[in-house]
Amino acid sequence: MNFASDNVTGASAPILDAVVRANAGAMPAYGADPLTAALQARFRALFQHPDLVVFPVATGTAANAIALAAMVPPFGLCLCHEEAHVMGDECGAPEFYTHGAKLAGLPGTGAKIDPAAFDATLSAMPRHVKQMPARALTLSQATEGGLVYRPDEVARLAEGAHRHGLAVHMDGARFANAVAALGCPPADVTWRAGVDILSFGASKNGALAAEAIVVFRPDLAETIEYRRKRAGHLLSKGRLLAAQLHAYLDDDHWLANAATANRMAARLGRGLAEIPGVRLAWPVEANEVFPILPAHLERSLKEGGATFYGWHSTSLPPGEAVREGEVFARLITAFSTTQAEVDAFLDLARACA
Amino acid sequence: MNFASDNVTGASAPILDAVVRANAGAMPAYGADPLTAALQARFRALFQHPDLVVFPVATGTAANAIALAAMVPPFGLCLCHEEAHVMGDECGAPEFYTHGAKLAGLPGTGAKIDPAAFDATLSAMPRHVKQMPARALTLSQATEGGLVYRPDEVARLAEGAHRHGLAVHMDGARFANAVAALGCPPADVTWRAGVDILSFGASKNGALAAEAIVVFRPDLAETIEYRRKRAGHLLSKGRLLAAQLHAYLDDDHWLANAATANRMAARLGRGLAEIPGVRLAWPVEANEVFPILPAHLERSLKEGGATFYGWHSTSLPPGEAVREGEVFARLITAFSTTQAEVDAFLDLARACA
Amino acid sequence: MNFASDNVTGASAPILDAVVRANAGAMPAYGADPLTAALQARFRALFQHPDLVVFPVATGTAANAIALAAMVPPFGLCLCHEEAHVMGDECGAPEFYTHGAKLAGLPGTGAKIDPAAFDATLSAMPRHVKQMPARALTLSQATEGGLVYRPDEVARLAEGAHRHGLAVHMDGARFANAVAALGCPPADVTWRAGVDILSFGASKNGALAAEAIVVFRPDLAETIEYRRKRAGHLLSKGRLLAAQLHAYLDDDHWLANAATANRMAARLGRGLAEIPGVRLAWPVEANEVFPILPAHLERSLKEGGATFYGWHSTSLPPGEAVREGEVFARLITAFSTTQAEVDAFLDLARACA
Amino acid sequence: MNFASDNVTGASAPILDAVVRANAGAMPAYGADPLTAALQARFRALFQHPDLVVFPVATGTAANAIALAAMVPPFGLCLCHEEAHVMGDECGAPEFYTHGAKLAGLPGTGAKIDPAAFDATLSAMPRHVKQMPARALTLSQATEGGLVYRPDEVARLAEGAHRHGLAVHMDGARFANAVAALGCPPADVTWRAGVDILSFGASKNGALAAEAIVVFRPDLAETIEYRRKRAGHLLSKGRLLAAQLHAYLDDDHWLANAATANRMAARLGRGLAEIPGVRLAWPVEANEVFPILPAHLERSLKEGGATFYGWHSTSLPPGEAVREGEVFARLITAFSTTQAEVDAFLDLARACA
Repeated sequence: MNFASDNVTGASAPILDAVVRANAGAMPAYGADPLTAALQARFRALFQHPDLVVFPVATGTAANAIALAAMVPPFGLCLCHEEAHVMGDECGAPEFYTHGAKLAGLPGTGAKIDPAAFDATLSAMPRHVKQMPARALTLSQATEGGLVYRPDEVARLAEGAHRHGLAVHMDGARFANAVAALGCPPADVTWRAGVDILSFGASKNGALAAEAIVVFRPDLAETIEYRRKRAGHLLSKGRLLAAQLHAYLDDDHWLANAATANRMAARLGRGLAEIPGVRLAWPVEANEVFPILPAHLERSLKEGGATFYGWHSTSLPPGEAVREGEVFARLITAFSTTQAEVDAFLDLARACA
Repeated sequence: MNFASDNVTGASAPILDAVVRANAGAMPAYGADPLTAALQARFRALFQHPDLVVFPVATGTAANAIALAAMVPPFGLCLCHEEAHVMGDECGAPEFYTHGAKLAGLPGTGAKIDPAAFDATLSAMPRHVKQMPARALTLSQATEGGLVYRPDEVARLAEGAHRHGLAVHMDGARFANAVAALGCPPADVTWRAGVDILSFGASKNGALAAEAIVVFRPDLAETIEYRRKRAGHLLSKGRLLAAQLHAYLDDDHWLANAATANRMAARLGRGLAEIPGVRLAWPVEANEVFPILPAHLERSLKEGGATFYGWHSTSLPPGEAVREGEVFARLITAFSTTQAEVDAFLDLARACA
Repeated sequence: MNFASDNVTGASAPILDAVVRANAGAMPAYGADPLTAALQARFRALFQHPDLVVFPVATGTAANAIALAAMVPPFGLCLCHEEAHVMGDECGAPEFYTHGAKLAGLPGTGAKIDPAAFDATLSAMPRHVKQMPARALTLSQATEGGLVYRPDEVARLAEGAHRHGLAVHMDGARFANAVAALGCPPADVTWRAGVDILSFGASKNGALAAEAIVVFRPDLAETIEYRRKRAGHLLSKGRLLAAQLHAYLDDDHWLANAATANRMAARLGRGLAEIPGVRLAWPVEANEVFPILPAHLERSLKEGGATFYGWHSTSLPPGEAVREGEVFARLITAFSTTQAEVDAFLDLARACA
Repeated sequence: MNFASDNVTGASAPILDAVVRANAGAMPAYGADPLTAALQARFRALFQHPDLVVFPVATGTAANAIALAAMVPPFGLCLCHEEAHVMGDECGAPEFYTHGAKLAGLPGTGAKIDPAAFDATLSAMPRHVKQMPARALTLSQATEGGLVYRPDEVARLAEGAHRHGLAVHMDGARFANAVAALGCPPADVTWRAGVDILSFGASKNGALAAEAIVVFRPDLAETIEYRRKRAGHLLSKGRLLAAQLHAYLDDDHWLANAATANRMAARLGRGLAEIPGVRLAWPVEANEVFPILPAHLERSLKEGGATFYGWHSTSLPPGEAVREGEVFARLITAFSTTQAEVDAFLDLARACA
């Protein structure tokens, strides 16, 4: 009953097998190997985009920060949700890679940017050299709260961003979960909706350590090769990352994994919501569940062997609050979460409630 | 007959097996897993050092640059050989991680720092705020030319460095090859000789992607945790790196691998030196061979299926030069190089000479 | 009737004279001149501090950013009021000089940090490497809202900061106005209250372009000399800055100038508050007045020849708000503001109200 | 007899007067004042260039580093002479402002880049992501050795630079001395010859602290405004810099000052060269003299009251060397140097020789 995160599990079997298979033989170093070379065509097909450029890296933090550095100058501002992962959980990676750009946080329930607040921020942007000019917007898909932007929602935000000269980045650490939830072609919720660069995550959904920076505007790709090398993120044995990413895409393994995780989260959420005294802060849309529950229940669950984190958020829905005697929690499911695990947890919860 | 580099091969069998074994089950993320936690004791034992601190990362560039950033302020100077890997082959990673420090190159045959030149540089160091103050020395062990610093040689350079307030870093991308060549305890050629931080390489000698930053002065470790996270080099699934490093050390696998590579290089060097018209620029001490050979021979070897790079160097021995009609080349052996491969290459060379 | 800012005026006569006087003759460059050398003793006497170190620079932005860079590592957090000048009016200078540190904003009426919010922030500081650790607190004296921290208020905040390992910086762009208002020795509201580095402003209070970074903890001074030079803030003709600073301190010229500005602001504030429909957002404590006034009055004042800026603030007192038909404005007085100018403005205001 | 540098003197009388005159009255801050606004037209006329953009700053280090940051990305290389001021005398300002770009030094007598070496460097540029790509060339006019590039020499270097995608910067700390020596329109030796950005120096030739970044390619100007503000180099009282620059240009004051300095240097050089045992390392072309003289003579001159620095250089002409018993020295004249001063020095030298 480990719902701490979707990165506490190892690689899925097909991905691990692919790493083992790719290990044999000599291959050119630094990404000149055939597996890495084949990624470009692979991602172009997946995203139905003729000239996107893809750069594999080992971590989501690197993917996000390198992408932002390609879009935001050192003196620029990057808009994001105030609870975005880049804002609070990457130890200032965007600031490091951009050489001192600044993140500006926007509000919105469930860590999903409120479009009205976004518009207001853009309109109020000062135009004096004393203030850093906004140059990018980054959206998390799914959000830190497990919510999913629909294609039209992405398009609306991206349109405003572009109109004001901002490039648009999507942090897709849980992109697979979002796409599985939406059931749309990945193109619809990315470049067709105005996304310029996507951090395409795999590590949280079956890979050991693999992400891809997918650049839909080739002009933004120019500096990335150097930035990645300079940061030590160009692996000498490129096959390690490439093998994972190929296996991740083979037979829609990525979507199958995400669908499992989403289904488990939905089951968990439904079950929890039925327990007296428990309510969900916002709906379950991907693979995360955010219940507000009685403190004694949280204690009992942990004593009973369940693992999950407490949470706090500035983006509860209007009118909602964590009251005295209550606890706010986050539960994450993964491709490896089983129905038995979920049901055991729910049984325990019902027994303790 | 691929002698292009020691990173064109995959992982050794024991290391690949370890990755597979470590994949099972849930483990805390971001280095809080038991495999990662056990690395500290492991390296302390290996280096007979009671309080060293170890940080696994995926690449040598990251290891070197993070280490240097812990030692050199943005306004500081880092001395290295003018042909050091950090100087010319990491796309400015040290400059990136240190936020703009500068590398200053020293001369010396075979990319091995000439101690007299080092002394002269230290003595001539200007003392005005217009000049960046030297704050670190970095030594490559083995050097870019495949030469090995003996413990007394490291000690002599480190003593001078410390006397002038410089910290000492060792780029050990091929540390195993050096230690295997020296036959001494790893402590003797590192902290006992004055090295403050070691980049302990594994990727070129059997791992897929794993290096360790080994910090012998705990005060220098303080910032590394943040610098690594901020750079996206703290893997969420720490087991990937830790499993490789454990297997690398198990049963002195690292030394056995390096010894094989060194033996193959020695055989290759000996064979080449006996061929008329071929001479070695400097001795083979680890796993690299630097022959100067007739241009027609180089062509024939490549046409015959051998893979290796041409080379050029500013650190040929006094009096030596690559003459008209000659080519300077670099051949690297790895743990996976076989005697058959070496002998086939030598047969071909003899046939074409 | 120019109340736009305290930097729209030129230098005071004594300071301009000092620049002219200092111009004659040859003097060593880069701060080795006798005028610059004498600053150290001068500031030590002024602050009754035996070993402070002082670095003149030309701008407050440089003073603040260099000071913060000496206290906050690239991966560190710097706490400040959410409306602090460093936060929004220096185009990211702190981020540039610190190489990517982050400013975190705290609330409080009139841009004065609320001590309870400060305590809460310190207590809630996460302790995981994913989050940037807080390393400094910067206070503006006087604040962006023209309020003044009393010595005991500084001491209370500094004590909390130090207890949590944060260094304390004071942005004293209007330090003279604050000290003139407090009537205490400058030491009492700086190092004796726990301030580690002070940006001692002069440009807004009589100088043409001169500020001093006053470092009360000598260990923090070590890197500043290099950082200043590297930023191009070590003037070759040091006499320009030094002459201004000497004249600024001579005969308490700095305090006399500030007292004039404060007196004019007080008169302006009193007069405005008596006009029907006008109220002050918070008290006048230094040389700034923040009235909320009818929109038609603001228009009439500007048409009548008055110059001042509109304002907006997130730190209005609880319960206060700018209502429909009202305008929030900022008026600043300087050493050069005359009583006639203030009275003309008030007459105009009364006539238009 | 102070020949230490051209920055040991104060401002010229017309420039000082201009500062005093500009001090009166209220003017908008941060460069919105009329004096600053008028600079654009002034420089466009001077350089006969319809859309250049000019940014005043207080120091040459800032001018150079900001200019380079506008041309070189953090991962780029900037070519310069190995003895250029940016290379060794600005404490790494280019590295700071560019966020970690690297300077690569080229050889050439008298700190003047050897065009053949430049061509060779460009041709040998590696094309792998492991190496930083060259993005700019910076020329010092006059050079650190006081030599002057003729328009055709600039054009030849700039043509090669542009052909390889490098922008061209000119460090004109002593631009006036060079132009006075060449007797050509300033346009001929700058944008017409291929210079993209010029650091137009004034501080060494009559100003107190004023330089202008003159951008001939408007696309390169876009980031400079932010970079300057962010670095604290946008003075709040812009009139200080603007007044100096206007007076500097009025009635060709800049060229008159430079012509005086050059004439004094020529006289000094001629006189020295006639003294037995003294020779000039290279010709006097601007306002610097580089004699090699007997050590006892140097001692006597200093004991006799002369001030000047010893020098060392890696760019002596082929065959030239400083021999045992000799000293290499640098003497600089300024607009304020008098013939009497020069003659007194020469008399002393002749008496001691």
